[in-house]
Amino acid sequence: MNTPAPPPALESSVAPHLRREGRAPRHRPGTYEPPYPSFSARFGQHVTAVVMAYFGVQARDAGHPELAAALTGLRQEFAAPDGPAYWDRARYVDAQGYTTVISVAYWDDPAAFAAWSAAHGTAWLDPARVPAGLGFFLELVTPAAERFETIFSAPDRVEGVTGAAAGFSGMIEEHGYWGSMRDRLPLSQTSPLYPAGSPLVTADGPVRTVVLPENACLIRSGQDITDTGARERELYLADVEPSLRAGMDFLRDDGLAIGCYDNRYMVVLDDDDQPTDRTFGLSWWRDLSALEDWAASHPTHVKIFGAAMRHLSSFGPETRLRLYHEVTVPAATEQRFVYVGCHDETGLLRAVP
Amino acid sequence: MNTPAPPPALESSVAPHLRREGRAPRHRPGTYEPPYPSFSARFGQHVTAVVMAYFGVQARDAGHPELAAALTGLRQEFAAPDGPAYWDRARYVDAQGYTTVISVAYWDDPAAFAAWSAAHGTAWLDPARVPAGLGFFLELVTPAAERFETIFSAPDRVEGVTGAAAGFSGMIEEHGYWGSMRDRLPLSQTSPLYPAGSPLVTADGPVRTVVLPENACLIRSGQDITDTGARERELYLADVEPSLRAGMDFLRDDGLAIGCYDNRYMVVLDDDDQPTDRTFGLSWWRDLSALEDWAASHPTHVKIFGAAMRHLSSFGPETRLRLYHEVTVPAATEQRFVYVGCHDETGLLRAVP
Repeated sequence: MNTPAPPPALESSVAPHLRREGRAPRHRPGTYEPPYPSFSARFGQHVTAVVMAYFGVQARDAGHPELAAALTGLRQEFAAPDGPAYWDRARYVDAQGYTTVISVAYWDDPAAFAAWSAAHGTAWLDPARVPAGLGFFLELVTPAAERFETIFSAPDRVEGVTGAAAGFSGMIEEHGYWGSMRDRLPLSQTSPLYPAGSPLVTADGPVRTVVLPENACLIRSGQDITDTGARERELYLADVEPSLRAGMDFLRDDGLAIGCYDNRYMVVLDDDDQPTDRTFGLSWWRDLSALEDWAASHPTHVKIFGAAMRHLSSFGPETRLRLYHEVTVPAATEQRFVYVGCHDETGLLRAVP
Repeated sequence: MNTPAPPPALESSVAPHLRREGRAPRHRPGTYEPPYPSFSARFGQHVTAVVMAYFGVQARDAGHPELAAALTGLRQEFAAPDGPAYWDRARYVDAQGYTTVISVAYWDDPAAFAAWSAAHGTAWLDPARVPAGLGFFLELVTPAAERFETIFSAPDRVEGVTGAAAGFSGMIEEHGYWGSMRDRLPLSQTSPLYPAGSPLVTADGPVRTVVLPENACLIRSGQDITDTGARERELYLADVEPSLRAGMDFLRDDGLAIGCYDNRYMVVLDDDDQPTDRTFGLSWWRDLSALEDWAASHPTHVKIFGAAMRHLSSFGPETRLRLYHEVTVPAATEQRFVYVGCHDETGLLRAVP
């Protein structure tokens, strides 16, 4: 009789220095074998909070001459001292037909961000420089280390906030089951992560600022088909992508009723601001449970999940599709959303009735 | 402008005397509106534990003369003093082709069960009376009040352990989302409900007894089409039932790999032991998380869930299909499974490798 191979060594998605006594993930630690490997970003112990800064510009006319200038200017500012540890840029056209480009910059040191921002970040939202036909915004999230989690299907290419991380974990335990997203969030060890309060908007001349209540929820969830062969790419585009797009469109157009304030289905741009094979959905939610409910039971996500599972099981270890997400549950003091010259349906402005 | 109607008054599925400080269901209490009404059984405060006794008999030949005699005899015993507060009877044919009839008896008072059992219950498992061609078993579960939960789509017809209850709750909060089953279990307020240990079997002559580890999990999940009209019945039988049957067959034949020890898809019998329009699935699981995983993501249950949701949304408030379940997570000391003259694939005998 053969002795079964020992299960592969797994570790918690929650970094050792963030683990708390009495934590109770849905599966007993050490007893669960996930159906496929996944990995989380690891930040150093000195990282107590990170900065996720979404610098956006919207244009009714994608050919507006000031759009390219703004993007070039921001690229230069990012290269200044105390600039982001990592940044990327992505584009989409919103439901109102506005081309929107968001440059997402990440710092693992809020003090560095503050220094950079004072010297190089304020111009972005200066009402005096906003030309007719353009709008600018900054959606700023500064979560404590306990307030975000990441998951990757492969541990060798960074995306999003993981670009500012020290590296990747080994294979993690908390994935492949409903509830695992919550189990990966370090703060879920000690808090039910309930929302409290309502979105607030304040206006100062042309500048509108939104603050969401405690424990709102942000997800950036991405896919990368760069490395796929012809057959896998074809099947992804024929089967997975249409389901994903339908779900993204649903959230964008009808998400408010289920607690999704805003959704953007974006394509990542390269260094020449040209589209790549990487995309992500970026959405804000009333709270983690609203996101969980959509993911668990809404027909649009059930369809995405089914299509992705079919894809992964068709190709097995030969799969070259890469998947990742990052989920953040900021405190009320860890986020603000500032809009200048933007239309009324932009981003978190939609969260305020 | 119309003021929206206030949300309907909801209460916790967890009875007031079983609520604990600091409980953290997945949704913040008082803020969630389930998509449709559901109800839980309410037991009196004096009920500290209940008895669920599954008296089974199996026959290779459904026409075995002693089968009917055994069932008639048990019916008479149940009518004796200290007999069950409620009982019902159901039948199925197992994977080995054995007709199996289970008489499920419920007490809200373990002392009454003990008294009844001493006087009227021991004969059922007496090896001396087991004739060739029959097997007898008793699967006995005696959960504390904190260790089971119930849910009903309508609060006016009892099934299962709810037959021994004092009545129904009002509309409950904890349903309609993944994780709600766990949130309804009172003990989940203070325990992650992790399993500990392995199934054990002991043999004493022809009598084999299985004990499952701490925090194993039992579900009885039923449907009743008695009151449906012709069109609803037709659609249920054409769409919902085949998906349900496929899922039940999967759990019966291939459930072990995902932590399901045994599954029986049973039809309830009437007072003349004739089949009714009521059915239920009865399955034992390694632990609650194994059941949660199947329910959340296994293709067979996703299909059942989809078919049921289509059915309910087709008929809306006109739906006459009734659904319910009861889920129990007994301590190791609260269950035992005794088999006499049964084949090796009977019930929990399958749990032991």
